[in-house]
Amino acid sequence: MRPGVESDLREARRRLAELSALEEVLGLLGWDQEVMMPSGAALARGRQVATVALVHHQRLVDPEHGALLSRLADADLEPIDAANVALARRDHLRATRVPADLVERWSEATVAGVEVWVRAREAGDFSAFAPALAELVDLARARARAIDPDRPAYEVLVDEHEPGITVAELDRHFAALGRFCAPAIAAVREAPRLEHDPRLTEPVPADRQEAIARELMALLGFDRSRGRLDRAVHPFCGGAGPSDVRITARYAERDLLDGLLAVIHETGHALYELGRDLDRAAEPVSRPRSAGWHESQSLFYERQVAGSPEFCGFLAAWLGERLPHLRGLSGDDLRRALARVDPDNQIRTAADPLTYPMHVILRHDLEKGLLGGTLAARDLPTAWNEGARRLLGAAPKDDREGVLQDIHWSSGAFGYFPSYVLGAMLAAQLHQAALRALPALPAALARGETAELRAWLGREIHVQGSRLPSDALCRRATGAPLGPEALCADLGARLRFAYGIEVSA
Amino acid sequence: MRPGVESDLREARRRLAELSALEEVLGLLGWDQEVMMPSGAALARGRQVATVALVHHQRLVDPEHGALLSRLADADLEPIDAANVALARRDHLRATRVPADLVERWSEATVAGVEVWVRAREAGDFSAFAPALAELVDLARARARAIDPDRPAYEVLVDEHEPGITVAELDRHFAALGRFCAPAIAAVREAPRLEHDPRLTEPVPADRQEAIARELMALLGFDRSRGRLDRAVHPFCGGAGPSDVRITARYAERDLLDGLLAVIHETGHALYELGRDLDRAAEPVSRPRSAGWHESQSLFYERQVAGSPEFCGFLAAWLGERLPHLRGLSGDDLRRALARVDPDNQIRTAADPLTYPMHVILRHDLEKGLLGGTLAARDLPTAWNEGARRLLGAAPKDDREGVLQDIHWSSGAFGYFPSYVLGAMLAAQLHQAALRALPALPAALARGETAELRAWLGREIHVQGSRLPSDALCRRATGAPLGPEALCADLGARLRFAYGIEVSA
Repeated sequence: MRPGVESDLREARRRLAELSALEEVLGLLGWDQEVMMPSGAALARGRQVATVALVHHQRLVDPEHGALLSRLADADLEPIDAANVALARRDHLRATRVPADLVERWSEATVAGVEVWVRAREAGDFSAFAPALAELVDLARARARAIDPDRPAYEVLVDEHEPGITVAELDRHFAALGRFCAPAIAAVREAPRLEHDPRLTEPVPADRQEAIARELMALLGFDRSRGRLDRAVHPFCGGAGPSDVRITARYAERDLLDGLLAVIHETGHALYELGRDLDRAAEPVSRPRSAGWHESQSLFYERQVAGSPEFCGFLAAWLGERLPHLRGLSGDDLRRALARVDPDNQIRTAADPLTYPMHVILRHDLEKGLLGGTLAARDLPTAWNEGARRLLGAAPKDDREGVLQDIHWSSGAFGYFPSYVLGAMLAAQLHQAALRALPALPAALARGETAELRAWLGREIHVQGSRLPSDALCRRATGAPLGPEALCADLGARLRFAYGIEVSA
Repeated sequence: MRPGVESDLREARRRLAELSALEEVLGLLGWDQEVMMPSGAALARGRQVATVALVHHQRLVDPEHGALLSRLADADLEPIDAANVALARRDHLRATRVPADLVERWSEATVAGVEVWVRAREAGDFSAFAPALAELVDLARARARAIDPDRPAYEVLVDEHEPGITVAELDRHFAALGRFCAPAIAAVREAPRLEHDPRLTEPVPADRQEAIARELMALLGFDRSRGRLDRAVHPFCGGAGPSDVRITARYAERDLLDGLLAVIHETGHALYELGRDLDRAAEPVSRPRSAGWHESQSLFYERQVAGSPEFCGFLAAWLGERLPHLRGLSGDDLRRALARVDPDNQIRTAADPLTYPMHVILRHDLEKGLLGGTLAARDLPTAWNEGARRLLGAAPKDDREGVLQDIHWSSGAFGYFPSYVLGAMLAAQLHQAALRALPALPAALARGETAELRAWLGREIHVQGSRLPSDALCRRATGAPLGPEALCADLGARLRFAYGIEVSA
C-alpha cells in the first residue's frame, strides 16, 4: 500500500460514518413523521429535516471529501475497499455536479409539486397540476444533464435507483413482459370471474390482526431486538439503519389478507436491512444494491413464499388456529385468493401481479417521452388514456383514476417505476435459484420454516450489499443475467392454478 | 440602526434557527431512545447522537458566529433582540472557552462514569465508583475554571442551570428551609403515622390508568395536536421543540396516584414548552428561563393545583365517576394521601415535599466541598451519612440507599440539584401571586377548570421565555424576589391539615 493510503482510508471511513449517521437520523425523522409525530409539528419537522439534509449535503460535496476519494480511487485497494470508494465517489460526484441553485430550485419545486398535486387530484383537475409538472420535468432534465450530459436524461434518472441499467435493457424486458401479460389479461377477461372467499372478508378487529401480524413477522425471522412494527397510513419499511429497522402496516377489518400480506412484504424489506454487513454498516458497500433489489426481497416473501402452495397450506392452518372462523380454510382457498386477477383495476398500488407490469410499462413509456422532450406535460392525460387502453385494455374513468393517481412525479421521482417490475423479475428468478440450491425448501415452507431460505438470501443478497454491480450480483445468485422468463413462468403458474388458463411465455 | 445591523440580525437568526433545529433533532433522538427504540439499536443511536451533537458544537463555536454576535452585542438593538443576542453569546462563549481536548475528555468521562456507577450501585460498592467520580470532579473543576476563573467552580456549574444565581443566595435560602423543615420532620416523627388509604392501592390496570391520564392532561389544557403521552421507565418531558412536546409516564397497578401525579407533573412541564413564544421558537429568547423555572411549572400543577383542597375535591369525584371502587372518596381523603410525609425515606426521587429540600441541601453541601477541593471523592460516604443523620434524622442503611442513589454525579451533572428546590420555592410563591391576581381561582379549581390559571402562567412565565433575568422575571410575576417563605407556608399548611401539627416558619 502506498504511504498515506491507510490514513486516507481511515479518514474516508470517518467521513462515511458521519454521512451514514446523518442518513439514519433522516430515516428516523421520516419514520417518526409518519408514525408518531403530532399533526401540529409538521412545519417544525420540515425545518429539522431540511437542516440535517443541508448538513449532509455540505459534507457530501466537501471538496476535501472529493479529493480524498480521488486519491483512494487511484490507490491499490482490497476489492471491497475499492468498491466502497467507488460508491462513495459516485455519491459525491452526483451531488457536486448539480449546481447549488439547481439543487435549491429542485428542492422547492418538489415540495410545491406535491402540494399542487394533492389539490389537483382532489379536484380531479390535471390542468391545475400541468404547469408544476412541466417545471419539474424541465428541472429533472437539467439535473440529468448536469450529472451526465452524454446519456439520455431518463436513463440518468433511472440510474439513480438502478445503477448500471440502460433504457435499452428496460425496453427489452418490458417488451417481453408485455407479450406475455397482454394476452394473459385478455384471457382472464374471458374467464369466469373469481369471487372473493367470504370467510376472508369476515371482520377481524385491527388489534387482533396486528397481534397475528407480529407473530407472523417473528415466524419469518424478523429480529424484534433490532426493529419494530407500527401502524401508518401507508405500509413502509424505514427506520435508522440496520440495527433499527421499522416497518408499518394498516389493517382493514374486512380484509385480513391485505394487512397480513403488507406485513409479509415489509418483513421482506426488513430482512434485507437486518441482513446487511454489520461490520461495514456505516459504509456504502453494505447498502442494499438498488431499489429493484430491495423490492425483490419484499416481493419474494409476498409472492414466492406466501404465494407458494406449500406455505399457503401452512398459513391457512396457522390462521385457522388463531381465528375460529377460518378453521377449515384450505391452502388452495388461500392461494386462490392470492392469485385473483382484476383486469378492470386502474390503480397501480392495488394491482395484482399480472397487471402490475403493464401499469409500470405505461409510466415508463410516458417518462421516456417527457424526459426525452417528445411529450409535453399538458398532453399527458391523452397519452395516459391511450396507453391504458393499449396495455390494460381500458382507459380510466377520469384523471384521478388515471394520470393523477401516483405521487411520484409531483415529488420529482422520475425513473423510479421500473424498479418495481425489476424487483418482481428478480424475485421470481431468485426463487428458481433457491429451489435448485435448497431442494428441501418446499417441504420447509409447508411447515412454515424459513430459516434456511433466510440464510440463503442472507448469503447471496443481504450481506453482499453493494459489493458487486447489479448484473454480477444477479449472475452470482441465480447463474444468469436478469430476464423476464422466471416472472412470466410464475405468473403463468398462478393463472393455470386459479383460472385454468394456459398462456405461453 | 447602524448599517449592516439588519443583515447581521438576519444572519444570526438563520444560525440560531439551525442550532435550534439540531437541538430539536437531539430531543427527538433522546425521546425515541427512551420510548420507541429497539434495544439492539443502542450503539447506532450513540453514533447518531454523537454526530448531530458534534455538528451542533461545531456550529456553536464557529468563530464567524462569535464575531457576528460580538458585532450585534455592540449594536443598538430592541430589548428583545438584545436579550436574544446576549443569550446566544453566553452559549457561544461557554462552548468556546472549554478547550477541545477537555470537551472530549469530559464527554468520555461522563459516558464511562454512568457505566461504572451502574455497576457500583448494583454491587453497593462505592469504592468501585470513587476513582471515576474523582476524575469527574477534577474535570468539572477544570471546565468551570475555563468558563470563568474568577468565580467558585461550584457556582459556575450551578450557573449553567440557573443563570445569575450565587452560592451565597442558595446558602441563605437553604438555611431558612432547613430551619423550617428540621423541626417539622421531627414533629412528624412524633405524630401518629398516616396510613395509606386502602382504596387508593386497589389494582387498576395500566391501560385504564393511561386512558384516565389522557383525559386528565386534556382537562389541564395539554394541546394534543402538539404533543403526545407515552410510557417510559422514568417519567419525563421531552420531544422536539414547542410544537412537538412529548411526555411519558409509567403506571403501577396498585398505585394509581403515583402515575396520575407524574402525568400532572409532566403536563406542567409540557404546558411551559407549549406556551413558549412560537414566533421566536427558534431563538434562545423563547427558551424556558432555567431548570428551576421549568420545575416550578411542573410542581405548580403537582402541588399547588393537584394538592389544593378545591382541586382534590373535584378530582376525587372525577375519579369516582371513572373507577367504581373510588366512589365516595372525598377531597380530604385525596389531600391526605398527597400530604403524607415519610421521614424514614432516604431516596430523593421518592421523597415527599417536606423532606425533599433536605435531600437537596445534603447534596448541595457535598458538591460545594467536592468542587471547592475541601472534600475528596473517597470521603463522600462518610460525609453523606453524617449529613443524612443531621438533615433527615437518620443515615441510610447502605451506600446504595445513600451516596450511590443518584445518577447525576456519574453523568457529570454537578450543580443541578438546587434547581429542584428553587422550583418548589417558585411554585409556592407563584401560587400566592396567582391567588391575588385571580380571586376566582379556588372556585375554578373546584370545578376542575384551569384555563384562566393557564393563561396567567402563560402570560407571566411561559411566553416570557428567557427575555428577563431570573430575578426580574420573579419580581414581575410575584412582586418580590425569590424567597423560601411561600414554600414554608405551603408545607406548613399541609402539615396542619394532615397531621394537625403547627410549625412556625
